[in-house]
Amino acid sequence: MAGIADVARAAGVSKSTASRALTGAGYVSEATRMRVQHAATALGYVPTTSAVSLVTGRTQTVGVVMPSLDRWFFSQVLEGIQDALLEHSYDLALYGASPGSAARREMFEHFLARKRFDGLIAVGIEPSARELERLVAFGKPVVSVGGYDAGTNAVSIDDEAAGRIATDHLIDLGHRSIVFLGGDADGRRTSFGDARRFDGYLAAMRDAGLEASARHVQGDVTLPGGYSAAVKLLGDRRTRPTAIVGVCDEVAVGAVIAARRLGIRVPERLSVVGIDDHAYAEMFSLTTLQQRPHQQGRAAVQLLLWQLDDPTAPAHRIYESSPLVVRNSTAPVDDDASAIIGVGHARER
Amino acid sequence: MAGIADVARAAGVSKSTASRALTGAGYVSEATRMRVQHAATALGYVPTTSAVSLVTGRTQTVGVVMPSLDRWFFSQVLEGIQDALLEHSYDLALYGASPGSAARREMFEHFLARKRFDGLIAVGIEPSARELERLVAFGKPVVSVGGYDAGTNAVSIDDEAAGRIATDHLIDLGHRSIVFLGGDADGRRTSFGDARRFDGYLAAMRDAGLEASARHVQGDVTLPGGYSAAVKLLGDRRTRPTAIVGVCDEVAVGAVIAARRLGIRVPERLSVVGIDDHAYAEMFSLTTLQQRPHQQGRAAVQLLLWQLDDPTAPAHRIYESSPLVVRNSTAPVDDDASAIIGVGHARER
Repeated sequence: MAGIADVARAAGVSKSTASRALTGAGYVSEATRMRVQHAATALGYVPTTSAVSLVTGRTQTVGVVMPSLDRWFFSQVLEGIQDALLEHSYDLALYGASPGSAARREMFEHFLARKRFDGLIAVGIEPSARELERLVAFGKPVVSVGGYDAGTNAVSIDDEAAGRIATDHLIDLGHRSIVFLGGDADGRRTSFGDARRFDGYLAAMRDAGLEASARHVQGDVTLPGGYSAAVKLLGDRRTRPTAIVGVCDEVAVGAVIAARRLGIRVPERLSVVGIDDHAYAEMFSLTTLQQRPHQQGRAAVQLLLWQLDDPTAPAHRIYESSPLVVRNSTAPVDDDASAIIGVGHARER
Repeated sequence: MAGIADVARAAGVSKSTASRALTGAGYVSEATRMRVQHAATALGYVPTTSAVSLVTGRTQTVGVVMPSLDRWFFSQVLEGIQDALLEHSYDLALYGASPGSAARREMFEHFLARKRFDGLIAVGIEPSARELERLVAFGKPVVSVGGYDAGTNAVSIDDEAAGRIATDHLIDLGHRSIVFLGGDADGRRTSFGDARRFDGYLAAMRDAGLEASARHVQGDVTLPGGYSAAVKLLGDRRTRPTAIVGVCDEVAVGAVIAARRLGIRVPERLSVVGIDDHAYAEMFSLTTLQQRPHQQGRAAVQLLLWQLDDPTAPAHRIYESSPLVVRNSTAPVDDDASAIIGVGHARER
């Protein structure tokens, strides 16, 4: 394989000039730079990046910190980031580990501290662990995806608005007994965005005078998690609501499947709305709030590159729009079902 | 932040000795090495990896080449690789792009050619594109995950055996009209492993004298892909089989959902078997062949580190076992259904 000496010889310049021309570190005339680059291309020369790195102080790598790879949102964001980085000749270093795990601590203390990246994209970071603040302290540009930011660049949908719009849609259809399904006790742990969606649900219920009947039924934020929680919730006629807001489409789809298994017709006897417009939403005719995480990944890369180009640029907050997509999983409340529920509720309290 | 000079001063050695002690490149006495490492730890010194890299020729990074992040198998393998690399203090550089895409070509020509890795793990690589051979040509250790190998280290289940066992299970239950669902025309493009599963199905059908009734119904290798293909297949009573082998669980689950929508009872009127033991398999009571891709990712890292330690070690081929897990989606053939199909088949030809 061709070395820098071969390139220098072919271009008729010294090795140090060839090196300056290829790394962009130090002055060379435009004509020389062109000549050296043509020679490098012709010879198939690929610079040793460690050497380039020492000269420029750049690693040409972006680090991506993620809690999980096995949820639709995260894999979509990661694909968007990967696509955009490829276009800009950046490598992607992946730092994936679940919040609270030993691997996660190890990652922050040893891996990220090596700072083998020019900047970071942090996806689905929790405020409670103060991780985003620690990432910012490395002194490299950081972009947050998924809601939470610490004065950093950030990209997300407006999760609270999404939760509110989903709930308002059901209220407008006459539903009064509406359960928020998925996530843990206070909706805080699974993801910052999930907690904001719950806040939006609560706000909509409150504004409609339904605060007293607001209910959060916990469950894993996965399709099987939504299924199990819904089987329990819907299996008992006394606690069965007329409508469900899933914390995300995976949970909402789990609820639709559970309803079908129990012989509860959707949307005639139960309305279900999700948030995401997941790849499965169409096939289950799911009414949902649409977001495009792939696009959010791309936007995060743009913000990061902008800050790398101009470290003095102010931080930007991008809210991606999340329109309501009405399909066939929501319908006006069924008065019969509603009447039964009314009794159930009274008994429940 | 402490530099190498601070560490050298604290340990009472020269900068070059301190550097040798920390990188492991060149001789220092054990006592000196310990003293320098204690000083480095006490001062919170983190080496500039570009410099370490120039000295050792190692990047302490493993590259992972993947066709997709949005399929259960790949995200599970990636998580396994990530976990194992964290334990061994290696960074993970992700190179993800769909086969045949412009990004994929760009990745091979410019990104991978920079060789910013000590070794590669190639997941789901196709033989046709000769990509694995190109990866090997970089002169770094390569481990293949997902079936295809080119004399490299490799980890996978025995996909052909899995396809055969799944099909034999249905034949043993008396099924004769068995469709293989999912993948493209010759089952070659989506993944090498998928094509081998189809080979196993064909072999089982042949051995049972059912070669003439073997049928491959194409479809995207996703849950919605399996659903759409199954709706079409099952919607017409004349072409409806009594059993389906899904190329993977996502496709098999799609078929179960399609059957339920069409009012075809599983397993009474239709048996469905998958391959994977996907996170959704339990919830759909799916009979399947179990594999653990997370474990395969970990095994790939072990093989790679082994080869990095000992470049003369011979290549290893690990077949992970894939036991049949019988749940409630398969049952003895329903003779009524079978009779109807018999007529249908006669008409079809």
